Amino acid sequence: MRLHDADKRTFASDNYAGVHPEVLTALAEANGGHQISYGEDVYTAKLGEVMREQFGEAAEVFPVFNGTGANVVALTSMLPRWGAVITASTAHINTDEGGAPERVSGLKLLTVPTPDGKLTPDLIALEAWGWGDEHRAQPLAVSITQTTELGTLYTPSEVRAIADYAHEQGMAVHMDGARIWNAGAALGVPFREFTTDAGVDVVSFGGTKNGLLGAEAIVVLDPSRVQGILFLRKLSMQLTSKMRFASAQLLALFDDGLGLRAAGHANAMARRLRDALEGTPGLAFSQETQANAVFAVLDNAAADRIREQYRFYDWDRAAGQVRWMCAFDTTEADIDAFAAVITAELTR
Amino acid sequence: MRLHDADKRTFASDNYAGVHPEVLTALAEANGGHQISYGEDVYTAKLGEVMREQFGEAAEVFPVFNGTGANVVALTSMLPRWGAVITASTAHINTDEGGAPERVSGLKLLTVPTPDGKLTPDLIALEAWGWGDEHRAQPLAVSITQTTELGTLYTPSEVRAIADYAHEQGMAVHMDGARIWNAGAALGVPFREFTTDAGVDVVSFGGTKNGLLGAEAIVVLDPSRVQGILFLRKLSMQLTSKMRFASAQLLALFDDGLGLRAAGHANAMARRLRDALEGTPGLAFSQETQANAVFAVLDNAAADRIREQYRFYDWDRAAGQVRWMCAFDTTEADIDAFAAVITAELTR
Amino acid sequence: MRLHDADKRTFASDNYAGVHPEVLTALAEANGGHQISYGEDVYTAKLGEVMREQFGEAAEVFPVFNGTGANVVALTSMLPRWGAVITASTAHINTDEGGAPERVSGLKLLTVPTPDGKLTPDLIALEAWGWGDEHRAQPLAVSITQTTELGTLYTPSEVRAIADYAHEQGMAVHMDGARIWNAGAALGVPFREFTTDAGVDVVSFGGTKNGLLGAEAIVVLDPSRVQGILFLRKLSMQLTSKMRFASAQLLALFDDGLGLRAAGHANAMARRLRDALEGTPGLAFSQETQANAVFAVLDNAAADRIREQYRFYDWDRAAGQVRWMCAFDTTEADIDAFAAVITAELTR
Amino acid sequence: MRLHDADKRTFASDNYAGVHPEVLTALAEANGGHQISYGEDVYTAKLGEVMREQFGEAAEVFPVFNGTGANVVALTSMLPRWGAVITASTAHINTDEGGAPERVSGLKLLTVPTPDGKLTPDLIALEAWGWGDEHRAQPLAVSITQTTELGTLYTPSEVRAIADYAHEQGMAVHMDGARIWNAGAALGVPFREFTTDAGVDVVSFGGTKNGLLGAEAIVVLDPSRVQGILFLRKLSMQLTSKMRFASAQLLALFDDGLGLRAAGHANAMARRLRDALEGTPGLAFSQETQANAVFAVLDNAAADRIREQYRFYDWDRAAGQVRWMCAFDTTEADIDAFAAVITAELTR
Repeated sequence: MRLHDADKRTFASDNYAGVHPEVLTALAEANGGHQISYGEDVYTAKLGEVMREQFGEAAEVFPVFNGTGANVVALTSMLPRWGAVITASTAHINTDEGGAPERVSGLKLLTVPTPDGKLTPDLIALEAWGWGDEHRAQPLAVSITQTTELGTLYTPSEVRAIADYAHEQGMAVHMDGARIWNAGAALGVPFREFTTDAGVDVVSFGGTKNGLLGAEAIVVLDPSRVQGILFLRKLSMQLTSKMRFASAQLLALFDDGLGLRAAGHANAMARRLRDALEGTPGLAFSQETQANAVFAVLDNAAADRIREQYRFYDWDRAAGQVRWMCAFDTTEADIDAFAAVITAELTR
Repeated sequence: MRLHDADKRTFASDNYAGVHPEVLTALAEANGGHQISYGEDVYTAKLGEVMREQFGEAAEVFPVFNGTGANVVALTSMLPRWGAVITASTAHINTDEGGAPERVSGLKLLTVPTPDGKLTPDLIALEAWGWGDEHRAQPLAVSITQTTELGTLYTPSEVRAIADYAHEQGMAVHMDGARIWNAGAALGVPFREFTTDAGVDVVSFGGTKNGLLGAEAIVVLDPSRVQGILFLRKLSMQLTSKMRFASAQLLALFDDGLGLRAAGHANAMARRLRDALEGTPGLAFSQETQANAVFAVLDNAAADRIREQYRFYDWDRAAGQVRWMCAFDTTEADIDAFAAVITAELTR
Repeated sequence: MRLHDADKRTFASDNYAGVHPEVLTALAEANGGHQISYGEDVYTAKLGEVMREQFGEAAEVFPVFNGTGANVVALTSMLPRWGAVITASTAHINTDEGGAPERVSGLKLLTVPTPDGKLTPDLIALEAWGWGDEHRAQPLAVSITQTTELGTLYTPSEVRAIADYAHEQGMAVHMDGARIWNAGAALGVPFREFTTDAGVDVVSFGGTKNGLLGAEAIVVLDPSRVQGILFLRKLSMQLTSKMRFASAQLLALFDDGLGLRAAGHANAMARRLRDALEGTPGLAFSQETQANAVFAVLDNAAADRIREQYRFYDWDRAAGQVRWMCAFDTTEADIDAFAAVITAELTR
Repeated sequence: MRLHDADKRTFASDNYAGVHPEVLTALAEANGGHQISYGEDVYTAKLGEVMREQFGEAAEVFPVFNGTGANVVALTSMLPRWGAVITASTAHINTDEGGAPERVSGLKLLTVPTPDGKLTPDLIALEAWGWGDEHRAQPLAVSITQTTELGTLYTPSEVRAIADYAHEQGMAVHMDGARIWNAGAALGVPFREFTTDAGVDVVSFGGTKNGLLGAEAIVVLDPSRVQGILFLRKLSMQLTSKMRFASAQLLALFDDGLGLRAAGHANAMARRLRDALEGTPGLAFSQETQANAVFAVLDNAAADRIREQYRFYDWDRAAGQVRWMCAFDTTEADIDAFAAVITAELTR
C-alpha cells in the first residue's frame, strides 16, 4: 500500500530519502531460503571480503542497525570503562544521539569547539591531558566525523596529522563515517587513503544516508585497538538476526559503483545549489560546501517563507543559519526550482 | 547478486527464513520521494491507527529494530532506576540477550524456574516481595513471553491471572511478543483478548520471526504504566531514521491477513512434524507443541546424524533435548522429508 | 600507631587536613552499644531535626560517603534517565569525578565555560534548549557549586536569579555544597537564605573538607523535585552501614558553632594570605578570594621552588595559575611563613 | 553528645555494633597535620606492606567505603563489559546490594541455588558454559563469600577446588570477605591459606563488621586478573579523600591481634548461644554454626515474642527461619540472658 507522494522531495535530510532501487533489487536477491542468522550467512562473509579489499587485509566488519549504534559500539570497543573521547562539540555523538554514549556505555565526551566541525591536533590537545590521574576520565580516543556535521571534509593529510598526534599520545582514532561515501566521492580517492593509510583505527561506515533502507557497519582497521565487538554489538542491542539483508544492502553500494555514484550525485547537487545561489543578496554561506550540505545564513522570516514550499532545518536560528541537504535522489530540477524560490524570496 | 541457495531450508530458527514476498512488495510501495525521518511519516501514522484498532484506543506504538531492543526499552520505560523484573529463568531477556537488560539499563532480573517457560501467580510470588527495602532491587514488573521460548502458550485467562496478581502487588506487566503472531494464530482470538483485555500493560510486538526483514514495535496498552519511551528509544539506539520502512513492514502483516496466515502456517507445520513423529521409538517430546516449535528428546548421536542433513539446535545437550523450529516458509514437503530422516535414523 | 608528622601542614587541599578534635569526641560519644544500621539510628534522626531547622520543615537528609556520591545520587534523583545537567565547565562533577556522573548514572553534562566558576541565567541559557527533541539529552537540572571550584561565591540573589530562571524553564536546581560551610561563613547568613529561600531544590551538603573524618549528605529542600533517593543511595553504593557515625560527624558541625567556626577560620586564613601577598611583584590573582582558596598567577619555576617547602597544586600550568587552599587547621603562623617564602622567592 | 544507650545490644547484625575502642585510638593517632589525600599518605603505604605480609608479595590493596563498593569495584576490575559472575543465589551481591552490580557496572549475575550458601565446582558448572556465544553474558568470574551469608565456612581445600575449577574454565575467582576475620578466626590459619594459596584472585577484605567505624578494602592477590582498579574505584564513587583514616582503621585490626581477637570472640559467642540452645524443644538449627551467626527455626509467634526483648531478623519467615548474629562486643552475659529468654519462651 502506498500512502505517500513518491515524487515529493525536500532539503531537510538525506534520511528523508528512501531506498535506491538497486538496493531494493539486492534485497530481493538475498531473499529466499534459509541463511544462518546473526552473521554466519554468505552475504556477511562476502561483505568481509569486500571490506578487506577496500580497507586492507586486517579489516574486520560488523554490520549494525544505525549510526548511533555504530559509533557507540565502536567507541566502547576502543575504550576501557574509564576512557573518554575527545571530539568536536558539534559531533553527532555529542549533539544528536540523545546521550547514548553516556547512557549505554558510560562514555565521557571531552568536547572542543571548532569553527568548521573539524578537529586538529592543536584543538585535540586542549583536552588531551591528565593520563594516570584517576580524577579525570582518561582521554584514550579521538572521534572525527567525515564528512563533518557541517558539510566539511578532512583531507587525507589532515586525518593523518590527527592520527599521528593521537597515537603519539596513546589515543586511538575513530571516524564517524555516516557520510563516508560523500567523502569518498568528494575526495576522489579510495577509502583507505583517508582511513587505514591515514592512521584511522575504527570507522563507523555509513550506508543509510546514501540510499540504503537501513544498514551501517563498524569497520575495524586496526584490530589491536578494539576488544569484544562481537559481544558489545549484541549487548548494545545492535545485532540484527537476519543479517544477510544488512550485508546485502552494504554490498550493493560496492556493486557497479553505486555508492560513489549516489553520493557523488548528492554532492554535485549541493554544489549546483551553492553555485546557483552565490551572490544572492541577503544570503551568505557559513561553511564551505565540500559534500552534500549547504550551510547558509539568511533572514529567519525569509527562511520560514521558503520553508512553506521546501522543508529544511534551521541549524542555529539565533544566527539565521540553515542547512540545505541533498540526497542521492535530489534532481537537477529540484535544485533549480529550490534555488529559484530562494532567489525570488530574497530579491522580491 | 544472489550468493545463496534460495530453496534450502532448515529447522534451526524462524529467523533463518527470509522476507515474505508480500513484505518486499510493501517496502517497494513505501519507497520513493521524501518522508520525514524518525517517525513523523505517514506509514508510522497509519501503523498507529492499525495498532489502536487491534489493541484499543489507548495504544501507542513505537517501532524499533529488534526484539532485544523492544524488550529492554519497554521494560526500562516501565521501571524506575531501582526496579527489577520478575521473569522465567528461560526468558529470552535472561538467556539470550547478552546481558543487555543489565548493561544498557541496569535492570535486575529476578528469575524463577518453570517447567514449561510459563509463569503463574504462584511462581511470580517467589520473587514478589521486599518492596520498600532499599537493599532489594524492587520487583515492579513481570515479563512473560507469548508464545514462550519453549513453544508453549498462555491462554487469555492465564495471562489475566498473572496480570491481576501483578497489578495487585503494584507490578506492571510486560509481554515479550516476539512470536505474538504465532500466539494469535494458535489461540484463534484477536490480539487484544490475551493482551489489553487480559491486563497486559506493554507488549514487545514481534515481526521479524514472522517474515519481516527486520522490524518490531513496542506497543503500550496502558500509557500510565510507562515513561519517556520516545527518549529511551533514541538513547538506547533503537530509533531508525527511515522509519517509514519499519512501519510499512509491520503494516504489511495486517494487510490481507498476512501475519496470521504466515504464523498459522508455521504452527501447522510444527503440528504436522509432531504428528508425524508421535510414537517414534527413541523419541520423546519434552514440551507441548502449541505453536511453531517442537521440543524433542533423543539420543545425541542420532541428533547429530540427523543434523548432517537439516540444521537445528540442541536445547539442552545433557538432557538430549533439541528444538525444531518451523517458519512461515516451511513447506509440507520439508516436514515430510525431515520426519522421514528422523524416523529412518531412529528406527534403523 | 602514629606514622606521620602531626605538625606539618600544606596549602594543597582542605582534605589534606585531618579531623577536628571536637569531631573525634563526637564519634566517641556516638560509640558503644548497638544502634540500628543503615539509618534508623537516633543520630540520624537527630540530624534530620537539625537539618529541618536549618533548611526548612520540608528538608530531608540522606548521609552519604563522599562528595561525588552526594552529587551523583542527588542529580540522579532529580532526573529521568533521559535528563541532562547544565553546569559550569569547571564544575567538580565535570572535571574531578572521573566521569562518575556518566558512568554510574548515564548523566549527560552540558557544560558552559565561565570566567569565575559561576553560572548565570545567560550562561545557562546557552544550553537550555531542545526540550521534547528526543535527539537531545534533555536539560532538566542545573548544578552550581557553592563556594565554587575557583574559590568564588554566589550571593543569595545570584542563586535566586539562577533558580528562578531554571524553574521557569522546567529545570531543577542542585547546589554542590562541598564547601557550603565556607559559603555560610563568608556570606554571614543562615544556610537557608542562599539555598531553600533562594530556590535551590537539592544540596550536596559538605562536611569532609571542613574537618570531618568523612561524611557528606544529600539535603532535599523540595521533595517534589526528587525520586527514590533511598534506593538510589543504596544501589549507588553510598549507603553506610554504621550510619550513626556519619550522622554524628555532621551533627558535630552544628554543635557550638563548630562548622562555621572552622570554615570561617579557613576563609580568614585565605584572606590573610591574599592580604599579605597583594602587591608582590611577579604575582597576580586570577580570582577573587571569597572563601578559603587563593588563585594566583606566577612563574612556573618560582612556583616549583616554593613548592619544595609547601605542597600546593598547579591549577593551569600553561597559564602559570596555582591554587593555595586553607583548611580549618591552617594557622596564622602557617600563613605568615608561607607568605614569607613566596615573597622571598619572588623578590630575590 | 550522646543520644543513645551505650549498654544495649542486639542479635540483629554485626553492623549494629559500634567501633572497637582500639580503633578509635588508632583514628586519633592518625589525626593531626596534613597528609596527601586520596591514598598517597603514609598509613595507606603501611597498609600495603601489611597486606603483602598477609597475602603475599604480589598483593595490592585499595581501601574503599563499604562492602558493596568492594565487591562491585573488584568484580568490575575482573571482567570485561560482557562478563558475568557465577555466584550463590544467597550471595550478598545478589540479594542485598540493591542491584548495584547490575546498575553501577552492568554486571550479569548467574546465580545458583545452594543448600548452605557454599558453591562447589559442580554447582558452578551449572552456569559455566556458553563461552564465545555472544547471546550469553560470558561467565568469566566466580564469587564466593567467606564466611557465607548463612554463617558457614569454606575450608582451604574447598576454596582450592573451586579456584582450580574456575581457572581451568578461564574464570577468575573473587572472595567476598565481608566477614573474612570471622573465617580466619574460625579456621585458625593465616588468611593466605584460604585465599592466595588456595587460588583466590581478588578479595573484598572486610573490616566494618568486625569493629571498624567504616572501612573495607579490595585486595588483589593476582594483579594479572584485574584492570584499572585505580580508575574504577574513583568512578564508582568509592575513593575516600582522607584515606589515611580508612587505612588506619584497617591497620588497627592487624595491631596486637585485634582483628582475630574481635572476630574470634564473636564466633565464640555464637557457639555459646548454639550450645546453650541445643536440644531446646521447638527449636531447630537450619545451618551449621561455623562463625558468628546462628540460623534457627522456630515458631514465628515465639520469635516475635522473643524479639520484643532482643532485636534480630527473620531470614525466611515462611520457613520460620531466623538469624541470630553476634558481634565483637557481644558479652557472655548477653548470650546467657538471650538464651534464657528463648528457652523460657519455648518451654513455657
